[in-house]
Amino acid sequence: MSTTAGWTVDTTGPRTATPPDFRTALDEAATAVDSALEQLLPQPEGLHARVHEAMRYAVFAGGKRLRPFLVLRSAGLFAVKREQAVRVAAAIEALHTYSLVHDDLPCMDDDDLRRGRPTTHRAFDEATAVLAGDALLTVAFEILAADATHDQPAVRCRLVRELALAAGSNGMVGGQMIDMLAPDKTFDADDVIQLQRLKTGALFEFCCVAGAILGQAAAEDEARLRDYARDIGLTFQITDDLLDVLGSAEKTGKAVGKDKDQGKATLVSLWGVDAARSKAQALAQRSVQTLAPYGAGAAALQALPAFLLDRDS
Amino acid sequence: MSTTAGWTVDTTGPRTATPPDFRTALDEAATAVDSALEQLLPQPEGLHARVHEAMRYAVFAGGKRLRPFLVLRSAGLFAVKREQAVRVAAAIEALHTYSLVHDDLPCMDDDDLRRGRPTTHRAFDEATAVLAGDALLTVAFEILAADATHDQPAVRCRLVRELALAAGSNGMVGGQMIDMLAPDKTFDADDVIQLQRLKTGALFEFCCVAGAILGQAAAEDEARLRDYARDIGLTFQITDDLLDVLGSAEKTGKAVGKDKDQGKATLVSLWGVDAARSKAQALAQRSVQTLAPYGAGAAALQALPAFLLDRDS
Repeated sequence: MSTTAGWTVDTTGPRTATPPDFRTALDEAATAVDSALEQLLPQPEGLHARVHEAMRYAVFAGGKRLRPFLVLRSAGLFAVKREQAVRVAAAIEALHTYSLVHDDLPCMDDDDLRRGRPTTHRAFDEATAVLAGDALLTVAFEILAADATHDQPAVRCRLVRELALAAGSNGMVGGQMIDMLAPDKTFDADDVIQLQRLKTGALFEFCCVAGAILGQAAAEDEARLRDYARDIGLTFQITDDLLDVLGSAEKTGKAVGKDKDQGKATLVSLWGVDAARSKAQALAQRSVQTLAPYGAGAAALQALPAFLLDRDS
Repeated sequence: MSTTAGWTVDTTGPRTATPPDFRTALDEAATAVDSALEQLLPQPEGLHARVHEAMRYAVFAGGKRLRPFLVLRSAGLFAVKREQAVRVAAAIEALHTYSLVHDDLPCMDDDDLRRGRPTTHRAFDEATAVLAGDALLTVAFEILAADATHDQPAVRCRLVRELALAAGSNGMVGGQMIDMLAPDKTFDADDVIQLQRLKTGALFEFCCVAGAILGQAAAEDEARLRDYARDIGLTFQITDDLLDVLGSAEKTGKAVGKDKDQGKATLVSLWGVDAARSKAQALAQRSVQTLAPYGAGAAALQALPAFLLDRDS
């Protein structure tokens, strides 16, 4: 439960308490994926050890591991082998970390602080950060394509292709491009939602759909998980924007108030704090209902939206 | 035949004339891959059109398309379907272009000129160049993993994995990391050769081996093409270093004399111009012999070394 000054979500409507075991589920995903990444990322050796050091610095920075959680729990709905799901989770976390490293660069968002520590280009240097990001993106595909990720090469190919689509110029990279152009544009809510769907939503979708792909589930399952992921993704973005307005740098571990300083429209600036929060709550509620057909197996995924609404970092 | 002042390869030993049809073979590869990339790269549309424009600007800059040539001609040894080989060639050229865009960045080699035109970050801006590079890297894997690249998913997975290994932190990215650290180090010839093998050699190897993978050729064929690629790669690097010392900015379309200015050791600075050139000639000769078992079908690949020795850009 958040106690950050100004974070007054309690006053605007009913709120589902985060179940006590949700944190456990999140921590469990973090432990599994960190252990896998420890094995899968190259050791700092050779004349080029520095790039491996920077990759590990960026990856092992104590993130929430939300995306690995989504992969592991969506895979759990379809009896996917644990070690296969963990590999996919590790690939996605590597790719997500690349996006943070590049987004933090001076020519992008120019952030000095990430998760309470110096960003990779501050701890190393810009060239090393660009290269570490490039290598983290590349290793994600290396992991997915390897035999150990799934017995059937067709499944591995589909994972590679879907991740590339989610991460590429019509996905995450395209979203960051729009974000870079945002200060010079006048965006309406549809534009901001498109930005979010590309910048963060596409990867959230892949995380959830990856479980269905690994489990060779029906198209109906994939569609359901995609719907869930879309609602979760927008909930995440709205709460992120709320934290930028209302949160503290100490708790979030990064600079706050940046969107306003940069003149960027957000759903919070366009709709106002209360309406944005209400919308996030409605999306969260719908995402819980979407997964009803899976019964108790989906409990952890259904607990996520309340966690997102409650978070203070 | 080169007529650049100071480019005196004629005086140091016998030289194989580039067969008249070699240029034709190279142009033919360029035409095929450019046409494929025109189709495969996204159109500049939407709020994020700018990143697509930058991707196309970087890719359609009139490069020699050496890597596509290697893919198409090595695939030709194993009766690979033309359209499959062209897709792999397009993927590799996209990935190669990403490496040029990122290497040219101010925090890396800080180049304003590439192939005689402003580099991508000069024509657009740094953030767009970083993102266009990221997207070109990503689209390479998207292309390889798609059904159209090969009937058998196992072949596509292998292509993805081998390309990721060649391009990642123990391949091309690792090589660029060493290159960035080079001005502060004292490198011997072994170090410089390791740098080259990672920075440019690994991708050359993949280009040649990709033909064998697509054709599901024997391990022996893969090994042979890998040997050929290694010799070609080092020949390419030595002639590149010779051009940096002896070439003209006008012909090469990029700044010259940079290695010396930056205090970087090269095989030319370590061995001297004549010994480096002799070594390149010996490697070139060996690469021709390696492909002898393929008879006339390998003629174009066998003509490449002479072209590399003769080139003035």
